[in-house]
Amino acid sequence: MSHEQYHSIIEELHECMAACNHCYDACLKEENMNMMAECIRLDRECADICAYLEQAIVRGTPFISELGQVCATICERCGNECQKHENDHCKKCAEACFKCAEACQKLTA
Amino acid sequence: MSHEQYHSIIEELHECMAACNHCYDACLKEENMNMMAECIRLDRECADICAYLEQAIVRGTPFISELGQVCATICERCGNECQKHENDHCKKCAEACFKCAEACQKLTA
Amino acid sequence: MSHEQYHSIIEELHECMAACNHCYDACLKEENMNMMAECIRLDRECADICAYLEQAIVRGTPFISELGQVCATICERCGNECQKHENDHCKKCAEACFKCAEACQKLTA
Amino acid sequence: MSHEQYHSIIEELHECMAACNHCYDACLKEENMNMMAECIRLDRECADICAYLEQAIVRGTPFISELGQVCATICERCGNECQKHENDHCKKCAEACFKCAEACQKLTA
Repeated sequence: MSHEQYHSIIEELHECMAACNHCYDACLKEENMNMMAECIRLDRECADICAYLEQAIVRGTPFISELGQVCATICERCGNECQKHENDHCKKCAEACFKCAEACQKLTA
Repeated sequence: MSHEQYHSIIEELHECMAACNHCYDACLKEENMNMMAECIRLDRECADICAYLEQAIVRGTPFISELGQVCATICERCGNECQKHENDHCKKCAEACFKCAEACQKLTA
Repeated sequence: MSHEQYHSIIEELHECMAACNHCYDACLKEENMNMMAECIRLDRECADICAYLEQAIVRGTPFISELGQVCATICERCGNECQKHENDHCKKCAEACFKCAEACQKLTA
Repeated sequence: MSHEQYHSIIEELHECMAACNHCYDACLKEENMNMMAECIRLDRECADICAYLEQAIVRGTPFISELGQVCATICERCGNECQKHENDHCKKCAEACFKCAEACQKLTA
C-alpha cells in the first residue's frame, strides 16, 4: 500500500465511523424512531467495523485484504439503508459509507 | 485478584454484555421504539464497556481498577434505565447489569 | 442458527479470545521475546476479532457469514503460529484457535 | 463541549491511537524486543482506549467525563513508558500520549 493510499483509507474509515455514529445518535432522537430501526442497527455495525479496520491497518495487521472486504460489504449495506431516508444525517452518512466502501474495495485487490 | 474472583468477574461481564446486546436487538424490534431510545443507547454503551473490560482483564491490563470503576458506573446507569420497562428482555438486562456493577465495584478496592 | 449452534459458537469465541489474550500476556513475559513477535501480533489480531464477532452475533448482526469467514481465517493463522512453540500457553492457544476456526466456518455455510 | 473542543479532542484521540499502534508495530520488529515489553503492552492499552473514547464521543455517550478520566490516566502512563526509550517511534508516541492526556483531562471538568 502506498503512503497516499494509506492516508486516504484511514481518512475514509474515520469519516465513515464518525458519520455513522452521528446518524445513530440523531436517529435515536427522531420523532418516528420505528422508521429508523434498520438505520440505527446498520449505523452501529458500520461504525464498529470501520473503527476496527482503522486500528487494524495502523497496527500493521496481516489481514488487511480480508477485513477490507467485509468492511466494504457492511459500508455498502449501511449506505443503501441510509439513502432511503430524507434526513440530513442519513444523506451525509450514505455518502460517507459509499466513499468508504470504494476505498475498502481497493484494499482487497 | 484471586482465581475465584477472576472467574466470577469474567462471567458477570460476559453475561452482562450478552444481556445488553439481546435487549438492544429486542428493543429495535419493539412496536413503540420511541419509548426505548434511552434503553437502546445505554445497552450499546454497557455492552461495549463490558466487552472491553473482559478483554482487558484477560490480557493483564494494569488499569483494572480504573476500568472497573467506569464499567460499574455504566452498568448501574443501564440497569436503572432497563428496570423502568416491563419487557422481559429489559428485566433480564437490568438484573445482569446490577450483578455486573457489583462485581466491578470489587475491582476498584 | 439453532439454539445449540448459537451457544456453541459463543462459547468457542469466548474461549479463543481468552486463550489468545493469556498467550499474549505470557509472551510479553518470556525470556526470549524475539521468538514470540509473530505470536504476540497474531494473538492480538485473533483476540480482537473473536471479541468483535461474539458481540456482533449476540446483537443480531446481519453480517454473521462474512464476519465468520474472516474470523475463521484469522483463528487458523494464529493457531498455525502458536503451534510452532513449545510453551504451554501457546499449545493451549493453538487448540482454542483451531476449535474456534472450525466453529466459525460453520457460520459461513 | 464547544464545537472547537470537540474537534480538538477527536483529533488528539485519533493521533494518539495511530501513534500507539505505529509504536506497537515498530516495537514488534525491534532487535531487542525484551526491552520493549512494557511499551508493547501499554501501546495496546492506550490505542484501544483512545479508539473506544473516540467512538463513544461521536455517538453522544453520556459517560464522557468518566471515560475521559480513565483515558487520561492510560495515555499518561503510556507516555511515561515511551519517553524512556530512544527510538523515534517511542518519542513520537510519548508526545501524542501527553497531548491526548491533556485533552482528555479537559473532558472531566
